[in-house]
Amino acid sequence: MPIKMKVINNIGRCQAAFRKSELDIEIPPGRHAYVLAICREPGRTQDALASDLCVNKSSVARVLDTFEELGYVERRPSPEDKRCLLIYPTEKMLAVYPQIREVTLRWNALLTEGISEGELEIFNSVLMRIEGRAREIFKELSEDKK
Amino acid sequence: MPIKMKVINNIGRCQAAFRKSELDIEIPPGRHAYVLAICREPGRTQDALASDLCVNKSSVARVLDTFEELGYVERRPSPEDKRCLLIYPTEKMLAVYPQIREVTLRWNALLTEGISEGELEIFNSVLMRIEGRAREIFKELSEDKK
Repeated sequence: MPIKMKVINNIGRCQAAFRKSELDIEIPPGRHAYVLAICREPGRTQDALASDLCVNKSSVARVLDTFEELGYVERRPSPEDKRCLLIYPTEKMLAVYPQIREVTLRWNALLTEGISEGELEIFNSVLMRIEGRAREIFKELSEDKK
Repeated sequence: MPIKMKVINNIGRCQAAFRKSELDIEIPPGRHAYVLAICREPGRTQDALASDLCVNKSSVARVLDTFEELGYVERRPSPEDKRCLLIYPTEKMLAVYPQIREVTLRWNALLTEGISEGELEIFNSVLMRIEGRAREIFKELSEDKK
């Protein structure tokens, strides 16, 4: 029995619509995951962020350029290696972070109404393994490109 | 126990990277779901397509404009109501459909390696209910906008 990515992607698109209706923030569309990732762990490299978010390095660079132009992030040299830039959220990004986090948590909770704890436990365990597999394939693709 | 949309969205982004590496087609980025939906059921209205794909009507209209410009779709008047336009794939879209479908099915199968049938059954059953819930919320949002 295969899984249906169609269903997984539909859930993602519904979430995007929910976020759009609940939030009045000028974050570039579909980039909320970046805000959550940057604020959750400030001071990471661009490459670490790309790997966390499962996007390629050139896409992350482009998105961070936009965020920098809009005043949402700062790139600061690493104290250990000045050539290496680390990504930090600005006050402007930290100000929108709680709202984005709240809407995300609310959505997550809305989805599971009426589903038993036992089923959710199995669901989450399979979901994590599927994500692990997806990340493995993603990593192989990134390494092939080098 | 809530579910983690972060994990669900990561799987989606890994799939996008996989598709990009496996396919050499000029489909606008992230629009493969449209090709699958249009070819699976040709002759639907724009609104039916929006609802199937969980995107708002103005986004679907914009994406279909691009597809039309690239020669991938045709809008033809419905035989029952000439004012109503139905969406059909062109030969150009039908030519890329089998490749997109093959890569999608291959990805779906890769993800579930090593997961037992019993677990997958529960996983898929919960996933369908979560999607149903997500669609309900999406529908409410679309109705609020009217």
